[in-house]
Order: sequence, then C-alpha cells, then structure tokens
Amino acid sequence: MIVVLNHGATEETINRISEKLQQMGYGVHRSTGKKRTILGVIGERREEAAQTLEAMPGVEKVVFITRPFKLAGREFHPDNTVIEIGPVKIGAGELVLMAGPCAVESEAQLLEAAWAVKEAGAQFFRAGAYKPRTSPYSFQGLARKGLSLLEKVRRETGLLIVTEVMDQFTVSEVAESADILQVGTRNMQNFYLLRELSKIRKPVLLKRGMSATIEEWLMAAEYLLSGGNYNVILCERGIRTFEPYTRNTLDLSAVPLVKQLSHLPVIVDPSHGTGKSNLVPAMSRAAVAAGADGLMIEVHPNPPEALSDGPQSLDTRQFAGLVEELKGVAQSVGRTL
Amino acid sequence: MIVVLNHGATEETINRISEKLQQMGYGVHRSTGKKRTILGVIGERREEAAQTLEAMPGVEKVVFITRPFKLAGREFHPDNTVIEIGPVKIGAGELVLMAGPCAVESEAQLLEAAWAVKEAGAQFFRAGAYKPRTSPYSFQGLARKGLSLLEKVRRETGLLIVTEVMDQFTVSEVAESADILQVGTRNMQNFYLLRELSKIRKPVLLKRGMSATIEEWLMAAEYLLSGGNYNVILCERGIRTFEPYTRNTLDLSAVPLVKQLSHLPVIVDPSHGTGKSNLVPAMSRAAVAAGADGLMIEVHPNPPEALSDGPQSLDTRQFAGLVEELKGVAQSVGRTL
Amino acid sequence: MIVVLNHGATEETINRISEKLQQMGYGVHRSTGKKRTILGVIGERREEAAQTLEAMPGVEKVVFITRPFKLAGREFHPDNTVIEIGPVKIGAGELVLMAGPCAVESEAQLLEAAWAVKEAGAQFFRAGAYKPRTSPYSFQGLARKGLSLLEKVRRETGLLIVTEVMDQFTVSEVAESADILQVGTRNMQNFYLLRELSKIRKPVLLKRGMSATIEEWLMAAEYLLSGGNYNVILCERGIRTFEPYTRNTLDLSAVPLVKQLSHLPVIVDPSHGTGKSNLVPAMSRAAVAAGADGLMIEVHPNPPEALSDGPQSLDTRQFAGLVEELKGVAQSVGRTL
Amino acid sequence: MIVVLNHGATEETINRISEKLQQMGYGVHRSTGKKRTILGVIGERREEAAQTLEAMPGVEKVVFITRPFKLAGREFHPDNTVIEIGPVKIGAGELVLMAGPCAVESEAQLLEAAWAVKEAGAQFFRAGAYKPRTSPYSFQGLARKGLSLLEKVRRETGLLIVTEVMDQFTVSEVAESADILQVGTRNMQNFYLLRELSKIRKPVLLKRGMSATIEEWLMAAEYLLSGGNYNVILCERGIRTFEPYTRNTLDLSAVPLVKQLSHLPVIVDPSHGTGKSNLVPAMSRAAVAAGADGLMIEVHPNPPEALSDGPQSLDTRQFAGLVEELKGVAQSVGRTL
Repeated sequence: MIVVLNHGATEETINRISEKLQQMGYGVHRSTGKKRTILGVIGERREEAAQTLEAMPGVEKVVFITRPFKLAGREFHPDNTVIEIGPVKIGAGELVLMAGPCAVESEAQLLEAAWAVKEAGAQFFRAGAYKPRTSPYSFQGLARKGLSLLEKVRRETGLLIVTEVMDQFTVSEVAESADILQVGTRNMQNFYLLRELSKIRKPVLLKRGMSATIEEWLMAAEYLLSGGNYNVILCERGIRTFEPYTRNTLDLSAVPLVKQLSHLPVIVDPSHGTGKSNLVPAMSRAAVAAGADGLMIEVHPNPPEALSDGPQSLDTRQFAGLVEELKGVAQSVGRTL
Repeated sequence: MIVVLNHGATEETINRISEKLQQMGYGVHRSTGKKRTILGVIGERREEAAQTLEAMPGVEKVVFITRPFKLAGREFHPDNTVIEIGPVKIGAGELVLMAGPCAVESEAQLLEAAWAVKEAGAQFFRAGAYKPRTSPYSFQGLARKGLSLLEKVRRETGLLIVTEVMDQFTVSEVAESADILQVGTRNMQNFYLLRELSKIRKPVLLKRGMSATIEEWLMAAEYLLSGGNYNVILCERGIRTFEPYTRNTLDLSAVPLVKQLSHLPVIVDPSHGTGKSNLVPAMSRAAVAAGADGLMIEVHPNPPEALSDGPQSLDTRQFAGLVEELKGVAQSVGRTL
Repeated sequence: MIVVLNHGATEETINRISEKLQQMGYGVHRSTGKKRTILGVIGERREEAAQTLEAMPGVEKVVFITRPFKLAGREFHPDNTVIEIGPVKIGAGELVLMAGPCAVESEAQLLEAAWAVKEAGAQFFRAGAYKPRTSPYSFQGLARKGLSLLEKVRRETGLLIVTEVMDQFTVSEVAESADILQVGTRNMQNFYLLRELSKIRKPVLLKRGMSATIEEWLMAAEYLLSGGNYNVILCERGIRTFEPYTRNTLDLSAVPLVKQLSHLPVIVDPSHGTGKSNLVPAMSRAAVAAGADGLMIEVHPNPPEALSDGPQSLDTRQFAGLVEELKGVAQSVGRTL
Repeated sequence: MIVVLNHGATEETINRISEKLQQMGYGVHRSTGKKRTILGVIGERREEAAQTLEAMPGVEKVVFITRPFKLAGREFHPDNTVIEIGPVKIGAGELVLMAGPCAVESEAQLLEAAWAVKEAGAQFFRAGAYKPRTSPYSFQGLARKGLSLLEKVRRETGLLIVTEVMDQFTVSEVAESADILQVGTRNMQNFYLLRELSKIRKPVLLKRGMSATIEEWLMAAEYLLSGGNYNVILCERGIRTFEPYTRNTLDLSAVPLVKQLSHLPVIVDPSHGTGKSNLVPAMSRAAVAAGADGLMIEVHPNPPEALSDGPQSLDTRQFAGLVEELKGVAQSVGRTL
C-alpha cells in the first residue's frame, strides 16, 4: 500500500499518519519528493485500513500495489486449474461446449434440443429452470419441475447438465440435478449465494456481472475459493457499454487477461454477449482463438417459438455447422474439440 | 408494438408474420413504405411476443411504444405517492434526511452518531447491520446484533431506522427492527428478495443498480408493487461510468425523469454517488434543487475510524453545517426542511 | 511517480531499473515490502518516462502521484480565475446566463430569440454559425453569413456573443465576431485548434468531450493555458453512458470537483446534457446549487420549427420562467443573478 | 419514420401533426392502438424532420426504421469493397498486416523496425509523424521531417506506408508521403478533415472514435463516401468502458456487425485496443477468427526506449512469432496470410 500525502502536508500531519499506520501493525517507509511525500506501507493489504487512512486529514489517496484476490490469483497457484466432471476436463487442452435453450420449456423441446447438441459435439446441456427476469410479468421458469426434466435429459442422453441457481436456499436442490451450478450475471455479487456455493464441492460457473470489473469478478470467485470450493469456472458474457446495436459488448480481452491473473478456467457466452444469433458464429470463433476453455451457446430447436431469448439462439442445424467451423480454429491454437 | 420488416421481405413472409401475430391475439395494421414495411401491433406489450417475432425470418426489429412498467408509471397513478411513516411523510413537500454511518460498529459509535444527526435535523438514522462487501476478507457487518443496536437507537433517540436487507430469508427479521428496508445496489435485480419484500407492507427503499437503466429500476419497483407493496421509495446512488475521479457518477437527471415517468418518491445518496466527502455538500444541494424528496448521507462521528466507507463520510459537525445550507435551497424550490 | 515491480523481480532487475531512472535524471527511493518492491521516483512527472518504464521487464506498473496538469491546477493558482468580458465577470459571484438557439437560422429567428433572452436576463447570446453534424446530409450551418447575423444581434441588443469555432483556420474570423469562442465536445482534443486558440486572448469556452475524463478535460485546458491564453471557461455538457432515456448523462459532480482541482470557472449546459427540454429546468437549478458559475441553455422562439436540436430547446416563455426560479436558488447558495 | 403520440393525445393534436407531416412532403399512415396512436411516416429519413416533430406537443418520440447511412450500407452496395494499393488488396481473401512503431523517432529506429516487420510478413509500415497527445508537454511527433523518413522507408524496403493525418491543411502533404491516410480516434468526427479527405482518392483508414457507436462510425465513413472517396477502411481500436485493467475495451463484435451493415473492409488494432503488449497476440488471433480483413500492430525494435506507447508495443521477435501463429488461424477461417 502506498499513502500519498497532500501537497503541503506538515511534518506533524505526516507523523500522525505514520503513527496510525504503526498502530495498525504496518511498517512504514517514507519518501520525501519535491512536491509530495509518500509513505510506503509494508504489511497485509486491507480495504479497511485504506479507508481509515483516506479519511484522515493530510492523505490524498491510498494506492494498492498488490491485488485484492489471493486464492484466485496465479501467484498463489501458478498452474492452470483443471476441473474434472465425469469424463470431461475443463481447463485442459480440450474445449468444452455447453449448449441448449435459454429456459426449460417442455420435455419435447428439451429432448429435441439435447439430442441435437449432443450429436453436434456438446458435452454439456444448458437450460434454465429458474430464470431471472427483468419484468415480473415475464415467464419465470419451471423451477423444480424444470430440474426434473433436466435430470431426464441427463439420463436419456448422457449429457452433463449446467443450470442456474438463483438463491442460497435452492443450492442443494439444484446441486442434486446439475453437474455445474451457474451463477448469473445479476447474482455475481450475491454474497449469500456465493457463501452457500462455497460450501459445496460441485463446480460453479460464475458469470461476470454486466458491469463488473475483472477485479470484482475475481473477488467474487475469491468468495467461493475462500469458503473451500475450488471448482470455479469463470464465464465472460458481455459488459454494459454505450453501444446500442449489441445487447452487451463481449469483452474477449478478459480471456487472456484472466488467464494471466488467475489459474481458473474461462469460458465465453457469445449468445448473451451479443444478443444476436447472427453474431454468435464469428464471436465463438474469436473466443476460441483468444484462448477460451469453452463456449456456452444458446441453441433452440425452433428459435421463433422460444419463450425467452429467441433472437440470440441458434437453431440446431446452425449449431452443428458452427461446431464444424470451430474444429479448425481450435486446432490452429493448439486445442482440440 | 411495431414490427419492422427487413428490406426486401416478400409478401409471403409478411403474411406469415401477420398470421403469427393474429394467432397470438394481436390486431395488426400494415404500412407499406418505400423501403420497408412495418406492422403496427395492437394489444398488450409482452416481451415474449417480441422475442418470438425477432427470431422470425423477415423481421428486422421490434420496437415497443409503451413502457414496460405499469403500476410504477404515472399513467396508472397520476398523483404523487406519499409514504407516511410515523409523523414523517415522504414525497410530500417536506424533505426527509436519512443520515448515519455506513455500518453498525458499536453501541457507542451508533448513539453518538444518532444523537448528532437528530440534533442536526435528520428524521431517519441509517446504518448497515448486514453489509455487502466486494471482498470476503472485509468486515461483513454485525448482523442480528447490529439490528438490536439499531432498535436501541430508535428507543433512545426516537429516530426512525432505515437499514439494508440482503436476502429474502432475513426480511421478517429486518422488518421487525427497521422502519424502512433498504435494497442495495447489488440486489436491485435480486428477484427473490423483491418478491419477498412485495409481500410485506413496510416501506422499501430501492437503490438503483450501479449499471441499471431507469427502465430496469422502475421494473424492479414493479416487482414490489405487483406483489402488493406500494410503499416504495427510489434512491439514486450513482451509476458506473468511465470517470475514475469519482467512485460513481451521480445521475441527478434521474430525479426529474423518474418524477415524470413515475409517481414514486425519489431520494438521493450523494455519499455513495461520489465516494468523496468533499463533494457531498455540493451534490446534496444540487439534489434538493433537482427536486429530490430527500437525502441519504453517510455521517460518522470520526470518519478516520470508520470500519467502512470512511472517505465518503461527513463528520457530525459537517453534517450539521450542511443541513443549515440546505434549508435555503429547499425553500428556493418550494420545499421545507 | 512510483514504480511497482513484479512479484519476484530479482536484484539484478531492480538494479537495472534504478540505473535507468538515474540516467533519466530521477532520484530513486527503494522500499522492499514482503511481496513487492517499489521504487519512489523523485523528479518531474513525464508520461514518456512512465511508458519507457512500463515496457521494461520487471515493472508491473507505474503510478503517478502528481496530477498531469500544472497551469490549470489550483496548486499553481490558488485563487479563482475571474474572466472579464465587457461589464460581465465570469467566475465571480454573479451567475452568467448564455442562451439562444442551437443554430443561426435566419435574422428574424435570431433577433426574436435574442431580445427575448435579453429581457429574461441573459448576458450572452449563443447560436452556432458553424455546426458539427453527425450526418453529412444534415444542415451544416450558415458559416460566415451566420457570423454576420450574430454581429448584428450584438449591435442591436447589446448581448455578448458566444459561438463555436470548429477549426484552426477560422479562429481569427470567429474571434472577430464573438466575445467567447466555443470549442465543441467533438473538438475537445483537436490539438491544432487548441494550439491556435492558445495564441489569441479572447476567452474560450471549452466543452467537455462526451467521453473525456476530468483529467483529460483539464489537460485540454492546459493546451490553452500553456500557449498563453488564460481566459478559459470550462463547460460540463454531459457524458456518454449506457442510459438511453437521456441523450447524455449530465455529470454535475464535475462542478465541485473541477472547482477543487482547478481555478477556472465552470458553467453547465443542461440542454445538451439531457437532450430533453422538460429536464432542463430541474437540471439548471441543480447546476446552480452545485456551484456552477453560469448556464448555457438552448432557447428557440419556436422549438418545433428549429432546424436542429428542437426537442431540447426551451421556448422563450419557458426560459423567462426558469430565470425567475433560478434567482432564489442562486441566492440560497450565495450567488446573484 | 414512426411518430409515437402521447397517451391521451387528442384528435385535434393528431390532426395537427399529420398536417405538419404532409406539409413536409411525407405520406402518413395512422394506426390507433388501445393506449397509443402511432403515425407511420413514408418518405426520406431526415434528422431535422424528426427533431421538428419531437418538439411538437403531443409527440412522445420519433422512431427511425431505416438506417442513417446510405453509401456505406450494404443495401446500397451488396458486394464487399476491395481496395487495391499496389499489389495489395484489402477486403479480399488475404489478410493485411500493418506494423511499426507508434511514432517516427529516428531514421535508425525506423529502418530497423521496417526491415523486421517486412521480413515477418507485413505489407504496410505504420508510424506517426503527426501525433495527437493528451498532454501539451509530451513529444508531439517529427511532422514533415517524419514524413520524409517514412518515404525513405518505402524507397528502401518497398513497404507501403500508413500514417496519421491530423488536420485538413496537411492532407495533401501527408497524401504525398503515405499510401493510406489514417484518421485517429479523436478525429473521427472532425468533419472538416473528413470533407477534405473525401476529395482525394487515396485510401483512408478511419479509426473508430473511442466512444463512437457503430452508427456514428459509419456516418463518419458516409462523409468520406458522399464526397466521392470510396476507398475507406474501417479500423476498430477499442472503446471506452468502466474496466480499468485495459486501456480500452476491444469490441470485436464490431467486426461481424460492420460486415453485415456495410461493404467496407474492417481491420483491428489490438495494440491500442488493449494497451498491453501481452494481450496483443491473443486479441490478434481473435480478430482474425472474427473475420477482420487485417491487423494494425505496434512493433518497436526496443519497446522500453519508445518515445510513446512503449507498454503496448511488441518487439520485432514477438511480432515475427505472432505472424507465424496467425497463419494457422487465418487458414482455419478461409483466409490467407
């Protein structure tokens, strides 16, 4: 931590701040510049300490020099984390494909979609039983009944299941039906939910909040890791910007950046990331080329009949075509599919 | 709803879309332009219908002409909503002041702050017993013990209490201790929490999500209203932008805009909205001049000792000075304080 | 400047970086922490030096502790700059009002608007002879003919004139007709234009770029000051955010912030800042309460007939009403109008 | 154009608006819904007409259904534009590589960089003789002398030259030295510069403004095309968002989106797009996979000695390695390199 003092801070002020730091258990190194004095602070990073200091007279700002995440950082764990789920390894060389409709609608829709994405090469089936919806008047998901249908998909097709969990009290219920529990973008900082998920050992797919910085995202992962659940997969799904043509702006630079900062696997959701099915193929190829460990793609047997997110869904034929295209891209960056 | 068709959509395509709309129970008006055909759709706005249409071949986009919120809108309820809590009316002519520290820390700190803000003119005491924190290593609040201390503040000082509720399972607990339940910025779209709060009758202070549009914010209010709780107070607290000098960008234009779109009272939190105590007085004056129904301000007896948010807290003397300043501004816009 | 070294930087690396700094003429203070070493660098802030260092192996980042602006900063010039134009002082206690239509359209329109805003209390008439337009097919302004009409307004009404200059080669032409030369939001970083304007002594009104940080804005002012033109007025006019209801998000916190960082006067343009005439009164009041030194407001005798920016213009009657309202607000914050 | 009327607009109001539209030369189709009346307006899109209407009482909003760009749009020109410069075709199957240092610094630096990027496979050499700089105290470029050095590079190495032009009065000078004239991000809406560039026939590389929407970017291209210069290459270089780890957020979805909306070639600048050299390889691969027609990459023989933008430059060895990697990615999406 570095404490930058105000232009013109007196000796008395500087001493008061130094003493305060020492009371807090920190070592202090003073550098007196021409215009400013700075104090180098040696010891553990603590947000509270910074806030205390920033509220003291004479302090202009506090600058952190270490990152706030520990367990999620590469310094703590230099090797890539690989998450094994049945026969599938996430974060190893092979790309994982998670595909399926936005919401569980009916058994017929689900099974048709599931067989199609399996045939195309997906290892995971995705569909929401619990749905966060901006409007209270929109379809809110089939809940428990949806989970049963997802279990049926797994039994019949052998696909692994990824589905969203929206609150801490349904964690155990969803954990019984799902192979991966998804935390949605609106819940990335739902700290109760994160704490509950940190107590289980099932993998968690943590979507980036729609206006979360990379650092906040890794801090949300830190909640999971610090509670003991190391099976965390990050998912970039677009951030909110001023551009109106796309639903979100897919931040693919997050992929190599997170790979540098953290050991956790990262997948990309180009369907929510763009909101337009006709941009999904190009952005899927780009995500693979950027180094993503997998993709999560919305696929619906009949997008115009989807109860939610129709415009961003591929149909099953388009998805199969995309998987073929991705094979070459994956190979060109040393991955397999 | 208006359906804009692709340049070059064939008659067959147009007929297919019209039939689909009629099956959905809509009336359809066709306008054939030089370059584009559009279909005016008569009937209830439904997000699902729009999504179905947008996924159909031949449809370029669907444009809504009505707003998605109903109960929260002024068309539904032309007069201002006034919320009465004991002797205080929110949304009537008198400004309300909610003040206090970010977090409940100790009995001594709490009572000192409470007596000071009461003396300065605040009607509400604010402090968090449950604290959402970006880092799992930060102070997380005193929880139930904090609620007891807040009850003590009410008993001793007569101040009304506003405090945050973070999840649906502590709603009844917090509702016993608080006069207003606050939904924090990270929970604005925690739909389970909103549904639970819609079942009680205690007032809810709904903070705007840090990257929520005005429309999404009013839709979150709609969750509360549609469940039967009409006692909703909106709170602007800054949005996330590219500007790094301030913690958030306080969007004061939200105040007159929400007043036009909705009948609900709006208050402003300049402390989180700027993150810097030395900007709080100017932005408090501006909020009152913009038409806010009240202010929520962080006040701490000793900001450098605060366990959270020190740099944005006023001390009690500064707060008392600010209240004096605000009296003139309030009067100049026809309000009292 | 502080140079933060990588976790695990070797002694050899640290020495190489220290030597480089000394070659550049800097003094160096080393602090060795538990996890990181930092080098405190003593000497003039230079962007180039920072970039050199950031490209060196072993350097994680360079943190500036001084601000990049000098002449524009309060440390350089502690007292408020007051700009005198004829009988008007900008930045002293009295608020200035600049009002008029977006574009110069015709003599009749101009004179009608000018007499009306003068009567309501404005000291400055604003209207564009040169207009930056997103579309090449839109009305581009009357140019030189527009300037003549503005001169006529000054002669007939005695109002002072503020009008936009769009490129360095019309600076002298516009300077002959105008009392204040306005730099538009798209030209805030047109450095040729700034350099040319730095050579004259006429006051320049520098609008904030629509996505410019406060620091970039003050650096644009620094171009003007460093060339010798100290008559600089800053104008907040809204920044680009994700919110679609308003054309821009008016950042009123920029007013007190700029007042702390700089000695230059600041005015606010709520017309472009919101894009909606029905938000202009509330945001004008708020700007005054926040401490703005003046307002720039679009006023058109007949907004539905305006050739540009109709929806954000007040009509002359609305403007006169607003000025009345503002008198009380100004008084309540110790200003006059 | 669609005119949406206010809830409760009277017949008289509706008639007045219809008549106004007819006076303006538009055809009008009325649709009367349950809650709102809308008017479908048939005729040419005109911004001014929309603004007139939006300022009329009774009008809630005007919705455009056609896009504002014409010549830049695919409807006008369905086939891809291919720009031929000497032996190189931009927008055909082969990827183009533009590489070199941020600024022209010296002959030795330039030639070393040029030979290295040529050997690695680049067809274009990029370096700035004129440099837009945020600070007036930063290195501003070698100007005319820099252009001479670039001409020398072309003579000696045979590389084609791309360099920035910053104002309309140096267009002819830069056009003599350069094969492509670059418009920088801060000048995307410098309409005088665009108009001047529209009169020449040399290709223009138009960088996206750092907070420009896709539509504004294509409208800037429209300035060039409407003046007669059809040789326009678009360049995505990152947009401004709230994320602080990267200098900008590279919006790769702009690549397929622009390809759908427009016939113009699109290249990507991952160096400015991320600001960090260690993210450049991944984002270069991703850009190619997304369908970009080429890349513009900063390469410096010795990044720590660069006078600007050191931290985002690759050294020549890294660039050569990247080109090798890109060959496979290009092939996997049907392109050659």
